[in-house]
Amino acid sequence: MAAPELEVLRTVVGISVLVFFAKILGGVFSKFNIPEVIGEISAGIVLGPAALGGLINVFGGPLIQLNDLLSAFAQIGGIIILFAAGLESTFAQFRAAGGASFSVAAMGVVVPFLLGFYVPIQLGYEWQVAMLFGAALTATSIAITIRTLENIRQLHTEEARIMINAAVIDDVLGLAVLAIVISIFEQGSFPSYFMIARTTITALGLWLGLLIGAVFILPKFLDITTLWKSEGTAEAAATASCFGFAGLAAALGLSPIVGAFAAGMAIASSKAIGRIKEYIAKLKFIFAPLFFAVIGTYLDFASMRNIRVVLFIAVLAVAVVSKIIGCGVPAGLFLRDPDRGLRVGIGMVSRGEVGFIIAGIGITSGVITADAYAALLTVIMAADILTPFLLRRAFSAPILKGRLYGSRGYKS
Amino acid sequence: MAAPELEVLRTVVGISVLVFFAKILGGVFSKFNIPEVIGEISAGIVLGPAALGGLINVFGGPLIQLNDLLSAFAQIGGIIILFAAGLESTFAQFRAAGGASFSVAAMGVVVPFLLGFYVPIQLGYEWQVAMLFGAALTATSIAITIRTLENIRQLHTEEARIMINAAVIDDVLGLAVLAIVISIFEQGSFPSYFMIARTTITALGLWLGLLIGAVFILPKFLDITTLWKSEGTAEAAATASCFGFAGLAAALGLSPIVGAFAAGMAIASSKAIGRIKEYIAKLKFIFAPLFFAVIGTYLDFASMRNIRVVLFIAVLAVAVVSKIIGCGVPAGLFLRDPDRGLRVGIGMVSRGEVGFIIAGIGITSGVITADAYAALLTVIMAADILTPFLLRRAFSAPILKGRLYGSRGYKS
Repeated sequence: MAAPELEVLRTVVGISVLVFFAKILGGVFSKFNIPEVIGEISAGIVLGPAALGGLINVFGGPLIQLNDLLSAFAQIGGIIILFAAGLESTFAQFRAAGGASFSVAAMGVVVPFLLGFYVPIQLGYEWQVAMLFGAALTATSIAITIRTLENIRQLHTEEARIMINAAVIDDVLGLAVLAIVISIFEQGSFPSYFMIARTTITALGLWLGLLIGAVFILPKFLDITTLWKSEGTAEAAATASCFGFAGLAAALGLSPIVGAFAAGMAIASSKAIGRIKEYIAKLKFIFAPLFFAVIGTYLDFASMRNIRVVLFIAVLAVAVVSKIIGCGVPAGLFLRDPDRGLRVGIGMVSRGEVGFIIAGIGITSGVITADAYAALLTVIMAADILTPFLLRRAFSAPILKGRLYGSRGYKS
Repeated sequence: MAAPELEVLRTVVGISVLVFFAKILGGVFSKFNIPEVIGEISAGIVLGPAALGGLINVFGGPLIQLNDLLSAFAQIGGIIILFAAGLESTFAQFRAAGGASFSVAAMGVVVPFLLGFYVPIQLGYEWQVAMLFGAALTATSIAITIRTLENIRQLHTEEARIMINAAVIDDVLGLAVLAIVISIFEQGSFPSYFMIARTTITALGLWLGLLIGAVFILPKFLDITTLWKSEGTAEAAATASCFGFAGLAAALGLSPIVGAFAAGMAIASSKAIGRIKEYIAKLKFIFAPLFFAVIGTYLDFASMRNIRVVLFIAVLAVAVVSKIIGCGVPAGLFLRDPDRGLRVGIGMVSRGEVGFIIAGIGITSGVITADAYAALLTVIMAADILTPFLLRRAFSAPILKGRLYGSRGYKS
């Protein structure tokens, strides 16, 4: 057998052991009332090459190798999670939640950026470093929240719908922030307000165009394929739609996951939705724990030792509080219930890919030092680990003693 | 977004378009009574970079790029197909079919090797070239046969069981042949009969050891995981078993697919078999057409023009006749029915990976010329395209006017 084939097999074996271990840890954690997704992330932390996994030698290499195939699978996992989230709500429901979601998303970008800029400045960092921290804290990564809501059976609440829609819009805005930050570092000066507005509106317009295109084309496309004799055609069509729109989004300069979400939302109103949901659920059995476990493998214990504790605590506080205020206040106003607003705010706390990418740009361009980079990554990880706990607490009983009408409390 | 991520997305978009097109062509073909799998292979031929797909430009590259990620997915597809085939029969059934399958496999390796060696010698080729042709024709690739039997609902017949078991044993023997051929080319002389016997017995012994290990461990392992609270744990455990045993087989110098087959056969007697079959069926919706379509993309029209027609026709005849005789005669004796033996012989005609690998060794080591290489690849492809037609014909009515007891004829 040729060498690249053995390499593939080694990676795939590593991935399947990682996924299995993630499931087992998820099960153990949920017995102790700790969210399952934390178990999945922990599996990655434990088996990652920087920790225990580096000591286990399989076929002459560490158990989990952070190679291209692993990151390809993780990327596919992220796309499938957002596609599945899209399948849960139709375009009509999106329009109904549109105003609320847009306000939540916009404020959830502005408040973290401003606070994330202000706090490092107060701690004595330069404006470039502060701007990078602010930018890295803007975009929510909704996958962890979706998984937690699923586990506590609250995925069909109005709060969940607002969160998911807002997270997708906020991801589009996050990409605009990324574009602006890159142009600042390239030009070395602050861009004009005109340029900021143009970048933001272009990104939103492109995504809306993609969504409307999907809504017009995909349900008809799917309904035609279900007439086909060959078994599995609708499933293949759904897969092609998911990755096709992810690719279109990427070609337009957006994040692939917002394209997959648009495709899912469009397919939600097709006749084959039952079959497609069942099919995607099976794919998620593997790809969701894989995605979360790979997040865990990013944690590098060695560089964590050099983190400045004040910076870490201050930025983590900003990461949590800024989303709770930025997203929670507009959501509370729309839902006319501060406790339900708080749930939305907490659901938006988790961060992910966009934050990692911006931090990566910071370290590779030399704007931030290795310890500031480690602090930023650890804040993102810590926010991800905090979110499920806070979210379960917020759904189990009122915290702000609000009215909580229209939605039952969840007992853990 | 970083460049490798775009590259991944481009490949995944290409793959999902390929799979969807494979499904559509499969459906069209089956309406015209042509086996679905031929449609799937044809999709690969048409969309491959050597044909139409090379003219379609997506994100600045051909639609289907034959890169590492594509071949990784195809490899995973082959493993999943054999794992699913293993799930269809228990170890007890394997032992019952053991004698018949072993004879079919052994004769199905010896006869194609001898005929495949003799015919090129008669056409004036050197003994090294003739030996390479003989070796390349030994190993059956059962995936196409499984797919055809599924479509005509004959996967649970005794003939099917003998074919699948024999194909797995024959794959183990094929690897032994590969090892022997490589040692001949390295040493430049014919190996001793002792060395041939040792290589063959070692390969068979290792695989049997793997199978017995799987049968002892995996059902218990699976049954424990079904007790777990976390949904999808049994599915993750099945996936880990499948790829874990594929990896073990590779580590022992065997083909990964024979390890996956052993794992599947072991899991067939676990309590969670129903859930696991359902899960694997969904995975196969994507991975089976992907695997067959990728086979199609290997066909390169440019090099086909230089093929010597006499060689092509003679070797194709050897490829078909040698398996029908080598496998069909022992199967006919065991089943006491020449027509049912013929079915088994025909089912073993399709060739695949091992043939491609041996041909690849031939061209890279300079033993065969480019046109002989193209002829060999085209023979393998042609055998793959012929098999489903012949198999459907053989199952529809008696050809040799045998008794055909114990199995109903299939009406197409």
